[in-house]
Amino acid sequence: MDIKAYMNDLGQRASMASRALARSTTNARNNALLEIANQIEQSASELKAENSKDLAAGKANGLSDAMLDRLALTDNGIATMAEGIRQIAALPDPIGEITDLKYRPSGIQVGYMRVPLGVIGIIYESRPNVTADAAALCLKSGNAAILRGGSEAAHSNQAIAKTIKAGLEKAGLPADAVMVVETTDRAAVGELVRMDKYVDVIVPRGGKGLIARIIEEARVPVIKHLHGVCHVYIDDKADVEKAVKVAFNAKTQRYGTCNTMETLLVAASMADKVLPELNKLYQKEGVELRGCDKTRAILKDINAATDEDWDEEYLAPILSIRVVDGIEQAIDHIHDHSSAHTESIITEDIVNARRFLTEVNSSSVMVNASTRFADGFEYGLGAEIGISTDKIHARGPVGLEGLTSRKFIVIGDGHIRT
Amino acid sequence: MDIKAYMNDLGQRASMASRALARSTTNARNNALLEIANQIEQSASELKAENSKDLAAGKANGLSDAMLDRLALTDNGIATMAEGIRQIAALPDPIGEITDLKYRPSGIQVGYMRVPLGVIGIIYESRPNVTADAAALCLKSGNAAILRGGSEAAHSNQAIAKTIKAGLEKAGLPADAVMVVETTDRAAVGELVRMDKYVDVIVPRGGKGLIARIIEEARVPVIKHLHGVCHVYIDDKADVEKAVKVAFNAKTQRYGTCNTMETLLVAASMADKVLPELNKLYQKEGVELRGCDKTRAILKDINAATDEDWDEEYLAPILSIRVVDGIEQAIDHIHDHSSAHTESIITEDIVNARRFLTEVNSSSVMVNASTRFADGFEYGLGAEIGISTDKIHARGPVGLEGLTSRKFIVIGDGHIRT
Repeated sequence: MDIKAYMNDLGQRASMASRALARSTTNARNNALLEIANQIEQSASELKAENSKDLAAGKANGLSDAMLDRLALTDNGIATMAEGIRQIAALPDPIGEITDLKYRPSGIQVGYMRVPLGVIGIIYESRPNVTADAAALCLKSGNAAILRGGSEAAHSNQAIAKTIKAGLEKAGLPADAVMVVETTDRAAVGELVRMDKYVDVIVPRGGKGLIARIIEEARVPVIKHLHGVCHVYIDDKADVEKAVKVAFNAKTQRYGTCNTMETLLVAASMADKVLPELNKLYQKEGVELRGCDKTRAILKDINAATDEDWDEEYLAPILSIRVVDGIEQAIDHIHDHSSAHTESIITEDIVNARRFLTEVNSSSVMVNASTRFADGFEYGLGAEIGISTDKIHARGPVGLEGLTSRKFIVIGDGHIRT
Repeated sequence: MDIKAYMNDLGQRASMASRALARSTTNARNNALLEIANQIEQSASELKAENSKDLAAGKANGLSDAMLDRLALTDNGIATMAEGIRQIAALPDPIGEITDLKYRPSGIQVGYMRVPLGVIGIIYESRPNVTADAAALCLKSGNAAILRGGSEAAHSNQAIAKTIKAGLEKAGLPADAVMVVETTDRAAVGELVRMDKYVDVIVPRGGKGLIARIIEEARVPVIKHLHGVCHVYIDDKADVEKAVKVAFNAKTQRYGTCNTMETLLVAASMADKVLPELNKLYQKEGVELRGCDKTRAILKDINAATDEDWDEEYLAPILSIRVVDGIEQAIDHIHDHSSAHTESIITEDIVNARRFLTEVNSSSVMVNASTRFADGFEYGLGAEIGISTDKIHARGPVGLEGLTSRKFIVIGDGHIRT
């Protein structure tokens, strides 16, 4: 198989389809989503049959139970997938919105129109429900999609692709609007991320290795999410009860998520007041604490944090703790070690709160709230394609708007420039 | 000289300075700009002395008169440079603006805060005034800048850099906030565009060759402007007088700009009505016309357009003309040949106007207005760092807002996720 020619054909067809999508009506796109949801429900037994092939291969290849669990399509999972698409269909249409249309001294009116990006390439691993979810977000925002899932879910992804294409055709939109790459050859990823003629943006959803490789190879712009080394800083002026509550929640509400706190910073004046209580709560949950010297002067039984700990995304019941002089040192620590994902200050002081909000340069900066809130649904975006730790285009949780851009529109009545 | 170490040092210092800028007040940044403007005026004779070295070297190296003209710093040019910086100082501060702060069902407030990107790398050619102009735009938007001008303007750029540093210091901001690369070694560009640890975005200002090289090498995101193959389409339903007026202005108001029309598309039903009149006007200005067969059936004396003409950015008094069936074919032609910069439809028909606005996927799409309006000042942005033909982040004329991004801010009162 000539991978380059194959991917080129996919790109060209997706690009053609994206033009049809750009001129499709809100209703046409919503109907397509509802048809796809129906097709998924009606194809439940076929989806499970194809999924079982992936599961069998996964078992034979020694995938871990956790991996197999993420790979499995259950009746419940299929219903959730269909329901997710219906929820996306119900969101307001971001496309075509005209804003800020104003008269200029020359007499022309100038404003913005929100438009699709064109063709979005999504590269992801294991979970087959991403196929349906990502396709739905792209369609809702008027974009064509080229989806490249993991080889371990190849049968499941192709089965879902079939339901998507059937739904698109039923709604009168081109089936090429969603292309699921059929080859599991890794060279296909290399082609996809360099096809800047046809692909407008790449959204990788996966582990660090995948993303690092894409960044290295990509010619197409990438909306990327590197990792989450999130901090909570308990300020001199913190309320002890709120501090304990938020620091406990930010670590223990879920361990494996990118918005989980990995390092707790505590102002020296507060360390005595919050650390013993937090220690008790964390011990009860089995969280391993690793502290700086000042922390260990208070919590004598915990391990010492190494230099590496401050940069670590544990994704596990482990927490590093550092006692700092105050807000200045806290912000410096965050600047040096944070992944610019999400940081929160606990304080009753408006000066420190404003300073933290201004000076901490992360995609989400919080006051008196758990880092676990950094999420497209919690923020009211209605949907989320990922969380961006980039600075340009989309930053933080990326909803439908991150899959669009704004072009200028100008309305005149025979106006010329003089 | 170890270019890698040198650039790394520049990057590190600019990155440190960007943190000071991010917490600087609106007044501090404006004062710095006013001080820089003063310094430039006070250093006029020194600037001219250094500039004369570049001019002498340029003459010795056989630069064209046009190139030397762009390189020259006159008294008038220096005054304009200072005045331009004062105008930038007078613009509203984009930084720190909080928008859309709304309560969510969980009780947290979620909104956006506009923030600087961090460190901006600007790579440009010949005109030394870009040094002052780009530095001012970056400072106004709270960003540090690393500027890499052309070797032909090396003395002038360093002299301007001195005035900028003096102004920054007078205003109490770090002199490292604007770093002008001192080496003329081209390897410095290669380092700059790959220093993603320190540089947040690259803005190239120069010809196709420069930009192509940067795209090929860059690891840092690039806000780029490729070229301008702009179209005016005279629709079936156009007003003849407006059509002639706009098509004449879009080509002849200036030839060398990226928003100049390069191809005129005319609906078949209008060709007889507009082409003879336009031909007369263009002939008077010495514009060479190159037409399709249908155009040449009406304008018998003009040359035939070749396939290459439809993709050409002439930047010269040359215009290609194609007669099309109607709006459908016009949009198809634009899709195939436009550089997605600026296109305009001339029509009295609201259905065709809306269709053109929706379906033409360019950074500026116009109705009954000259493509020459595609410009940051005409659009009311107050300033312009360039025009982006990218789809993500900033599209079309890029003002201060294009040098910023929005982070999420979350305000709670001890809120936790459950």
